[in-house]
Amino acid sequence: MGDVTPAERQFSQVEAVRYIADVLSRENVSQDNAHCVATALVNAEIDGQKGHGFSRVASYALQARSGKVAGHAVPQAHQNGAAMLRIDAANGFAFPAIDLAIERLIGLCAETGVAAAGITRSHHCGQLGAHVERLADAGCVAIMFANAPKAMAPWGGNAALFGTNPIAFATPRQDGKPPLVIDMSLSKVARGKVMAAAKAGEDIPEGWALSASGGPTTNPKAALSGSMVPAGDAKGAALALMVEILSATLIGANHSYNATSFFDTEGDPPGVGQFIIAIDARRVGGSGFTGRLETLIAAMLGQDGTRLPGEKRLKNRAQCRANGFAVAPHLIAEIDGLAQ
Amino acid sequence: MGDVTPAERQFSQVEAVRYIADVLSRENVSQDNAHCVATALVNAEIDGQKGHGFSRVASYALQARSGKVAGHAVPQAHQNGAAMLRIDAANGFAFPAIDLAIERLIGLCAETGVAAAGITRSHHCGQLGAHVERLADAGCVAIMFANAPKAMAPWGGNAALFGTNPIAFATPRQDGKPPLVIDMSLSKVARGKVMAAAKAGEDIPEGWALSASGGPTTNPKAALSGSMVPAGDAKGAALALMVEILSATLIGANHSYNATSFFDTEGDPPGVGQFIIAIDARRVGGSGFTGRLETLIAAMLGQDGTRLPGEKRLKNRAQCRANGFAVAPHLIAEIDGLAQ
Repeated sequence: MGDVTPAERQFSQVEAVRYIADVLSRENVSQDNAHCVATALVNAEIDGQKGHGFSRVASYALQARSGKVAGHAVPQAHQNGAAMLRIDAANGFAFPAIDLAIERLIGLCAETGVAAAGITRSHHCGQLGAHVERLADAGCVAIMFANAPKAMAPWGGNAALFGTNPIAFATPRQDGKPPLVIDMSLSKVARGKVMAAAKAGEDIPEGWALSASGGPTTNPKAALSGSMVPAGDAKGAALALMVEILSATLIGANHSYNATSFFDTEGDPPGVGQFIIAIDARRVGGSGFTGRLETLIAAMLGQDGTRLPGEKRLKNRAQCRANGFAVAPHLIAEIDGLAQ
Repeated sequence: MGDVTPAERQFSQVEAVRYIADVLSRENVSQDNAHCVATALVNAEIDGQKGHGFSRVASYALQARSGKVAGHAVPQAHQNGAAMLRIDAANGFAFPAIDLAIERLIGLCAETGVAAAGITRSHHCGQLGAHVERLADAGCVAIMFANAPKAMAPWGGNAALFGTNPIAFATPRQDGKPPLVIDMSLSKVARGKVMAAAKAGEDIPEGWALSASGGPTTNPKAALSGSMVPAGDAKGAALALMVEILSATLIGANHSYNATSFFDTEGDPPGVGQFIIAIDARRVGGSGFTGRLETLIAAMLGQDGTRLPGEKRLKNRAQCRANGFAVAPHLIAEIDGLAQ
């Protein structure tokens, strides 16, 4: 954790959830939603995903205050077929809608073998991996797709059209081991790294981003008004199109290029979408699945230099749960400043 | 098509299917299976996917002759839950099993909203996009994953463990337009390009492949005994792990590192797997899906320099269906040589 400076603040998980839930409750967010959102943000912080943690609290609170996010929204699930859910997040926060999807998918896929939920009128869904991880904790193999405000151009083009449109995957493991979780945005590097370079006045490496004219740039400000380069170039751009169709077009959510910011209070609600698929492994290949998975994982880790995706996250989590964690003074100041 | 040399042979689609089906029928393949496999190979050839077309005929025939592929296999579907199928390809060719999966998935997902099929004891499944395209022709949004004999190392490692593990996606479009199809292997470049460079005695660009010691190489022979670099580096490697789990571990198919070659008659059947998910778009977001998709596509194509994935394939197909197509003399010689 390093030295705790005077204005830095130390939290346990429970304290942090209570702190954020209290902040949100003062900003026209229902008790249930405030607790749900606070839990998701704290878990992201604890997992080391700081871009989805405490750094979001003030912006979430201001969006609830302005009404851009409906803090009292109650998500509704509509089942249409034995294995399909459409969930209306009702322009509230994404997490209550995702909680509803997860709860319903666990029951459905145990009966049908596979089930899916499309979430519409949604918002920033944070750490995608955390959602599929909960499905895996309940015994499901899960895949999730989400769109987000525009940040990447279609391949060959020069204007941002898709979000960084993440994909996540999780699977249960044997003997109570934590699920294997894969979680990636489809940009080559996170947009947050470009924002950090812009703040620090530093150049970015060529290949991360394109300027608004579509050419390569090492200037982070030109990059922010341009677009992020997709991971794997044309292949990543094609995957971003697939994710856009699954998480927005299919469900009737706003496309990335029509979605307003997740950060500020400007404009209509973002209205983005998420799509989750849950699979009951026992209904595909019988009871031996997790044993076969351990064999595969052992074959991977038998090679020097390899590691499982998500290892760092588990390490962060264990450390923060045991010892608590510190939140930077500027974030505490920003959050406490909301009340003034 | 270029000039037709004397020994080159010209085919219509129907003639080509009959030619290949006759060859396979002479090699201990049932009439039904021979016709199904021939159709898949000819369609790949016509789509310009020559690595999955006529170039496979002799190797398929020899594997049927040796018994590595069971030419008379009849795939069996086992339904386990309202939306889940497990399909045993019975060590036959992949295509009859995939046909069975497609036929059953169309019916299932119309009832349940989403349905999935895992195929085990399978073989080379060729052009992945062609399979999801057929689901899209029937009105489904579809995703497919497949594993294949080892060709890519886990990230940080240096020995091939995963196949190039492709992902394909297809969706219906409005007004009878052909489906939008995305089809990609997860290696940065196709392994066939390295094989071609090795044959031609040419170097390959750095970044395509690693030698057996895990270092970068420009020597195609060192690359072939090493591993292919994943598209998007660590992200592509993580996706390859996801595809491996979905298409093999989940179903109980052989992992890529245990699968024998799709090309030669050595060893046991490859026993790889495929996993297909079919979605009924009307059950997620109502009837407006294809209209919203056209809006998204128009926004993409409104940018100079962009094109839809699969455009080249449709152009090849239209040309070959109208005018027939020529097959190179060395392939005809190889195939006709089987009878001697």
